[in-house]
Amino acid sequence: MAKTLRQTDDGTARELEYVTDPDEQLEKKPGTRYGAAELGFRHYWYPAFLSRQLGKKPKSVMLLGENLVFVRANGRPYALFDRCVHRGMQLSEGKCWTEGTITCPYHGWTYRLRDGELIAALTDGPESAVVGKKGKGVRSYPVEERNGVIYVYMGDGNPPALEEDVPEELLKPEYVFEAVTSVWNSNWRPAVENGYDASHATYVHRYSLRWRTQFNLPPAWAGKVESQVEGKYLIQRRRGPFGFEANYPGFGLWPRHAWLRKALAKARKKFGPKGTPMIAGVRLPCLIVNHYSYYSHIRYSIPIDAKHTRNFQMLAGRFHGLKALAFRLQYWLWHRWVFHKWFNEGQDKWIVEHLDYSAPEQFFRPDSSIVQLRKYFEKNARTSDPIDGMKE
Amino acid sequence: MAKTLRQTDDGTARELEYVTDPDEQLEKKPGTRYGAAELGFRHYWYPAFLSRQLGKKPKSVMLLGENLVFVRANGRPYALFDRCVHRGMQLSEGKCWTEGTITCPYHGWTYRLRDGELIAALTDGPESAVVGKKGKGVRSYPVEERNGVIYVYMGDGNPPALEEDVPEELLKPEYVFEAVTSVWNSNWRPAVENGYDASHATYVHRYSLRWRTQFNLPPAWAGKVESQVEGKYLIQRRRGPFGFEANYPGFGLWPRHAWLRKALAKARKKFGPKGTPMIAGVRLPCLIVNHYSYYSHIRYSIPIDAKHTRNFQMLAGRFHGLKALAFRLQYWLWHRWVFHKWFNEGQDKWIVEHLDYSAPEQFFRPDSSIVQLRKYFEKNARTSDPIDGMKE
Amino acid sequence: MAKTLRQTDDGTARELEYVTDPDEQLEKKPGTRYGAAELGFRHYWYPAFLSRQLGKKPKSVMLLGENLVFVRANGRPYALFDRCVHRGMQLSEGKCWTEGTITCPYHGWTYRLRDGELIAALTDGPESAVVGKKGKGVRSYPVEERNGVIYVYMGDGNPPALEEDVPEELLKPEYVFEAVTSVWNSNWRPAVENGYDASHATYVHRYSLRWRTQFNLPPAWAGKVESQVEGKYLIQRRRGPFGFEANYPGFGLWPRHAWLRKALAKARKKFGPKGTPMIAGVRLPCLIVNHYSYYSHIRYSIPIDAKHTRNFQMLAGRFHGLKALAFRLQYWLWHRWVFHKWFNEGQDKWIVEHLDYSAPEQFFRPDSSIVQLRKYFEKNARTSDPIDGMKE
Repeated sequence: MAKTLRQTDDGTARELEYVTDPDEQLEKKPGTRYGAAELGFRHYWYPAFLSRQLGKKPKSVMLLGENLVFVRANGRPYALFDRCVHRGMQLSEGKCWTEGTITCPYHGWTYRLRDGELIAALTDGPESAVVGKKGKGVRSYPVEERNGVIYVYMGDGNPPALEEDVPEELLKPEYVFEAVTSVWNSNWRPAVENGYDASHATYVHRYSLRWRTQFNLPPAWAGKVESQVEGKYLIQRRRGPFGFEANYPGFGLWPRHAWLRKALAKARKKFGPKGTPMIAGVRLPCLIVNHYSYYSHIRYSIPIDAKHTRNFQMLAGRFHGLKALAFRLQYWLWHRWVFHKWFNEGQDKWIVEHLDYSAPEQFFRPDSSIVQLRKYFEKNARTSDPIDGMKE
Repeated sequence: MAKTLRQTDDGTARELEYVTDPDEQLEKKPGTRYGAAELGFRHYWYPAFLSRQLGKKPKSVMLLGENLVFVRANGRPYALFDRCVHRGMQLSEGKCWTEGTITCPYHGWTYRLRDGELIAALTDGPESAVVGKKGKGVRSYPVEERNGVIYVYMGDGNPPALEEDVPEELLKPEYVFEAVTSVWNSNWRPAVENGYDASHATYVHRYSLRWRTQFNLPPAWAGKVESQVEGKYLIQRRRGPFGFEANYPGFGLWPRHAWLRKALAKARKKFGPKGTPMIAGVRLPCLIVNHYSYYSHIRYSIPIDAKHTRNFQMLAGRFHGLKALAFRLQYWLWHRWVFHKWFNEGQDKWIVEHLDYSAPEQFFRPDSSIVQLRKYFEKNARTSDPIDGMKE
Repeated sequence: MAKTLRQTDDGTARELEYVTDPDEQLEKKPGTRYGAAELGFRHYWYPAFLSRQLGKKPKSVMLLGENLVFVRANGRPYALFDRCVHRGMQLSEGKCWTEGTITCPYHGWTYRLRDGELIAALTDGPESAVVGKKGKGVRSYPVEERNGVIYVYMGDGNPPALEEDVPEELLKPEYVFEAVTSVWNSNWRPAVENGYDASHATYVHRYSLRWRTQFNLPPAWAGKVESQVEGKYLIQRRRGPFGFEANYPGFGLWPRHAWLRKALAKARKKFGPKGTPMIAGVRLPCLIVNHYSYYSHIRYSIPIDAKHTRNFQMLAGRFHGLKALAFRLQYWLWHRWVFHKWFNEGQDKWIVEHLDYSAPEQFFRPDSSIVQLRKYFEKNARTSDPIDGMKE
């Protein structure tokens, strides 16, 4: 049981057990699936690369703790398990002598990209007995490329349709989006939880430039946070009564400088674009979606290993023609730097990397969003049985 | 049982068990308190910072394996356990919005510095239910500031008076002292033991400048080393017959160049200040004191974790007015560089960091100082029971 | 049992157990001597330094996981276990006040280099009681210096004659040789196995400059690889039918650019020196020997610890007078850079350091060389009993 040191009423300090609602702390409880999912949930499609990142040179990547090698052949991306079955060498250090094959750099074992079958063992001649034998191929992974993103199915059995797993903003032609990737030095779960965390934004991001421009006047606290399943998402809504400024006993006024925010909000109401409140949602396996007035922010926090997460962040809007161009331009001139680089890569990355996720926890009212996220993932994540997984 | 390889008489080499007096090697014996005290002895006051090192910005420090955050408010220093009870964030990365409180950087949980109580959860409004609830505060540590040093009580229960634990040279107004801190990459025990080690000085420090000027003619060996309890110290005295130079069978003359030392000592007797032999003492929890002719050297070797030690070194003298000023001047022009930086930070740090403290040991006559230190610490260190600890 | 992920026939992917001949994978089987020999085989002579690398200053080196200190006295090299029995300090940081002794830098314990006996404890005076006592010496190692190389016997009991363990090219006066040392970040076994690996050369080294000049036309594959014991070596011979170029189904022609190689080989036959095919051999404890037309390449891959190997590489030829000089000149102008630095230090080092030696394996025909090497070492390595070891 988690313990901590604190000063007790009689002046002595002792190690105390935390007294918390056992339902809340799923990831601390042994035997839970969310608690065990240090390396993420399998049996889902995950984005692996942006199309522009993959060419004819093999590229290695770790996803959910597995080493994969990706390579493009005849225009199509392929993925294999990145270890030659012969002696354990990395295939990603090898060469694609012909399109559609990859050759191990050690003894020339050559695999077909399509299915991982061993088609030649060069240094044993064209009639080598190992070729075509059972058990000599490497695992191949189902891969799909859509709208500039390469997805890989990390699981057993036949994969579901891509549309089952990937937000429509990234698949349907009526949307445009721009993307950025980055690596955070943390487990993937605090990264996802932080994205759905109802109250950290009003403190951590309060003084960020982006926040100020997107909202009329963000409340400093809310009476209630509710999560409910809507399609494939768990959607969070903050209910009133809302608080904007108050005197805290023993502390004083907070937020500071609220008058400035109010004045800005007032001016904004008059001159600025109409803003609608942000809606935040999470989705399995590791997606965070924020809907803003005219665009959506979609973030995958993909497990690399237990201590590293690859963030795939996309800003998507429903635009055509010139408007689509303007959206892209705005992204490259503003959002990429202010939203993606500063806001997410700066403030959120800093938080998540400094957090001791293994520490005991004490929840308060706004944390119902975290509790509901954990329960939703626990209950709805696909299981290891592919048939079962497909039923979802 | 500790083993080592050696060549035996019949020409074979085998792993041999060390045959040593079991009383000597306390830190190797399971079940001893000294052996278990990898992270130091709790229930003592320890120096944490020099006053000039702490301002209104929170500062984290690790002592005895615990993370603490120190901050100054209304001129007074405070210390809390450096982890927000909410989600495990470091408080030391937070902000002091008002003097006397510290706010977690993640969700604005705000603690009173004085006692660690949670007085506000900013993002849950002024009426948050977590405020004032049992078990939501962080541990606060007793802190005292005296003569430019900030002390913290690392233990349970009510702390004893500071005078119980801290040498009078650092507390009484009739003394002046100057201090320097540093980190050694070693456990704290070899650092303390090295300071009390009767014989290493005559070899390691024999050719250091400081040694030569402080002593008339240091003996190369002594007939006996005696330790006895004097007040709060274990004091070591070297007894004769003393040796200054000899022919060692199979080796030859040692020390080399003793004639030069003798000549210098002779000249020194005529022209130099009268020197009195150094007295060395140790004191719980991790203090080494050396009394020289007109000043004392006091060193705390404070456990950071099992492999790092913070050395708090002070040179103290009983001076007033102009003499005090002269003493400080001498420190900054001479002792700081020759004594603290070269002698201690150079030679002793090098020794202690290179030593394999986990190796088996074979003691010789001068090591009685080490044996007596270990026995004294083993017997006299305060126990985990605060009442018991107070009785000492 | 080793497992891997692969795509099965029915489209599902599962963890499959590798099905391999249990005789092949000696180093994966618990209970085998080769599998346990992570730190190498003891009871052999190993080269430790080149003569020119050792002077009167003590030098530490790790061999087979043991720390040794080497030093030269009166022209002879000596080796002791590099840890003072007193407090565990490294003797290699100490000083040789007189030729034939080494003094610990901490308290002046002084050992005789010849046998490791403690002959003085300087800081305890010339009559110290520890001197001459049983169990106070450090282990000394048998050391021999021949033709510019310093050898040490890493084992128990009386060592065999150096001639038992070291190739005659390095001992007999009719040979000249030049040497180079380097450290690889891998275990010693993949380094030795790679040197004896029959098929990697035709793929890894096919495009290296050295290969092209040494051979007429290297076959790309061979019908059979045979190993047989010849004296102290296990010698490998590749038998036909040999293949030089072929069309591989589903892959195409390999090797590429064979026409260029053929043309070069043709020209070479006319104008170049007559080449004889290379013969490869291995020898206990960790030797690889390649015999070329007019010289031999001898490599020791000596275990430092489980993850580092010191390669001692030598090129030896049977030459006298001016021819010997020419051989040395050729080495320094050509072989050292092309053979030792590029070929071995470049290509082989890269392979061995990238290999996951702990991965499951699937062997093919040419791997019979690896299998035979493992079986030979397993059966013939000296045991821990010195008498037994001598019988070999």
